[in-house]
Amino acid sequence: MQPFTDTARLSLNQMTTELWSLREAVEGCARQGIPAIGLWRHKIAEAGLTESSRLVRDAGLRVSSVCRGGMFPASTARERQARIDDNCRAVDEAAALGADTLVLVCGASPDCDIDGARRMVRDGISQVVLYARGSNVRIGVEPLHPMFAAERSVIVTLAEANEIAEEYTPAEVGVVVDVYHLWWDPQVYVEIKRAAGRILGFHVSDWIVPVPDMLMGRGMMGDGVIELRRLREAVDEAGYDGFIEVEIFNRAICNMPGEETLKLMQARYLSCV
Amino acid sequence: MQPFTDTARLSLNQMTTELWSLREAVEGCARQGIPAIGLWRHKIAEAGLTESSRLVRDAGLRVSSVCRGGMFPASTARERQARIDDNCRAVDEAAALGADTLVLVCGASPDCDIDGARRMVRDGISQVVLYARGSNVRIGVEPLHPMFAAERSVIVTLAEANEIAEEYTPAEVGVVVDVYHLWWDPQVYVEIKRAAGRILGFHVSDWIVPVPDMLMGRGMMGDGVIELRRLREAVDEAGYDGFIEVEIFNRAICNMPGEETLKLMQARYLSCV
Repeated sequence: MQPFTDTARLSLNQMTTELWSLREAVEGCARQGIPAIGLWRHKIAEAGLTESSRLVRDAGLRVSSVCRGGMFPASTARERQARIDDNCRAVDEAAALGADTLVLVCGASPDCDIDGARRMVRDGISQVVLYARGSNVRIGVEPLHPMFAAERSVIVTLAEANEIAEEYTPAEVGVVVDVYHLWWDPQVYVEIKRAAGRILGFHVSDWIVPVPDMLMGRGMMGDGVIELRRLREAVDEAGYDGFIEVEIFNRAICNMPGEETLKLMQARYLSCV
Repeated sequence: MQPFTDTARLSLNQMTTELWSLREAVEGCARQGIPAIGLWRHKIAEAGLTESSRLVRDAGLRVSSVCRGGMFPASTARERQARIDDNCRAVDEAAALGADTLVLVCGASPDCDIDGARRMVRDGISQVVLYARGSNVRIGVEPLHPMFAAERSVIVTLAEANEIAEEYTPAEVGVVVDVYHLWWDPQVYVEIKRAAGRILGFHVSDWIVPVPDMLMGRGMMGDGVIELRRLREAVDEAGYDGFIEVEIFNRAICNMPGEETLKLMQARYLSCV
């Protein structure tokens, strides 16, 4: 297994430098020679969509993904429709930014039984796919770690995400592989192979021991137990040649000066991914 | 789905009343009419094995399980052997207490790759099974929630536990179904059916939202999102008619007076399980 010799596929997911505005993150990437960025919608909203597009274009960056659509389960039909409408706006934003993937965090609801919530996810996706037809935006279903099943995503394995994606063409729906969410799964390598041709994103971070916080406790690559290179090579063998987003939700890393975070993640990307 | 009308199958897992000694827990169950108890080895060691057996027998209680064996992965062969030896002692303790099941928390190690750790688990189990032959103690493989994959158990799905168990006869190895560890799994009902004839224990608690703590944040039945009755009925339909252990790792519940905890868990068992 060979390390990368350059950072041509590296992308900064904005959550890694959460204190930076969109402008600061874009400028940081440009200065640091990071070729792509994964944008979050609350940051796009803060800067404005037109201005966000202009900033990214002027900096010569690619937008590796827009995060996030999804969050389909809700207890009333009215609320579910509102969420589908919001997903359609997210498709428009991704298109305006030249991103080819909208990442879905599918959602969960303590008010519904888990099977019901899973049906709402499938129903929501089918409607967003209809809306996205004719745009160049694909829907990337991202399974989340099972510890988020009650609050963020009832889609918790790559098998489930593949099953949903396979109901559509690869030009419409694919999957996003995030090592933090999937490393524990005894089926992960089988399911990465199954996802060949449908992998729309690959996210890296690490699982540190002990986990300092369920939501904000991800580690920098190399600081934990995840077999990063093995997973990256599996994704590559499945034909993925797109950007590799560093997405780290971590309070301490958030609070580092952004430039330092970028340098550290470049170094760790080369040594660990 | 019908609620229970009595507590004939209820068992107190000692971790639920962690501040109680073995004697206090046994006396509490006897006073409260709880017919069984799941014992932990550090509590047995504290009271002494002979005294523990006497206390349980004199109180007329059944021992629904002994927790826990396992913890097989380690970085040196010497340490792995020491852990297997310790599992053999646990088999002897279970036999002395008249428990027919030793529960395994299989272990994890940040020093090994996850496949390597899984091989160590299988190897360790094979040796403990050899040792347990001729005793009346069966080995119960308990898959833990994937959030414990780096520190406590690389066996994280019921599918994996079933696969291991199926290498042996049902008189030797089975599985333990704990709702807290498995409720998120889209395959859980399929795998419960597959486990028919091999289910050696059923543990209940709840997943509260938000989770207050990864290790010590389980909830009392009814306080969270787990479909307890649906899971219990699935286990019953698979032929399980053994004890149902209430196993709650929770700081606030630990700190309640034990008698109150027992009354609350009896009420919730009847209304929610």
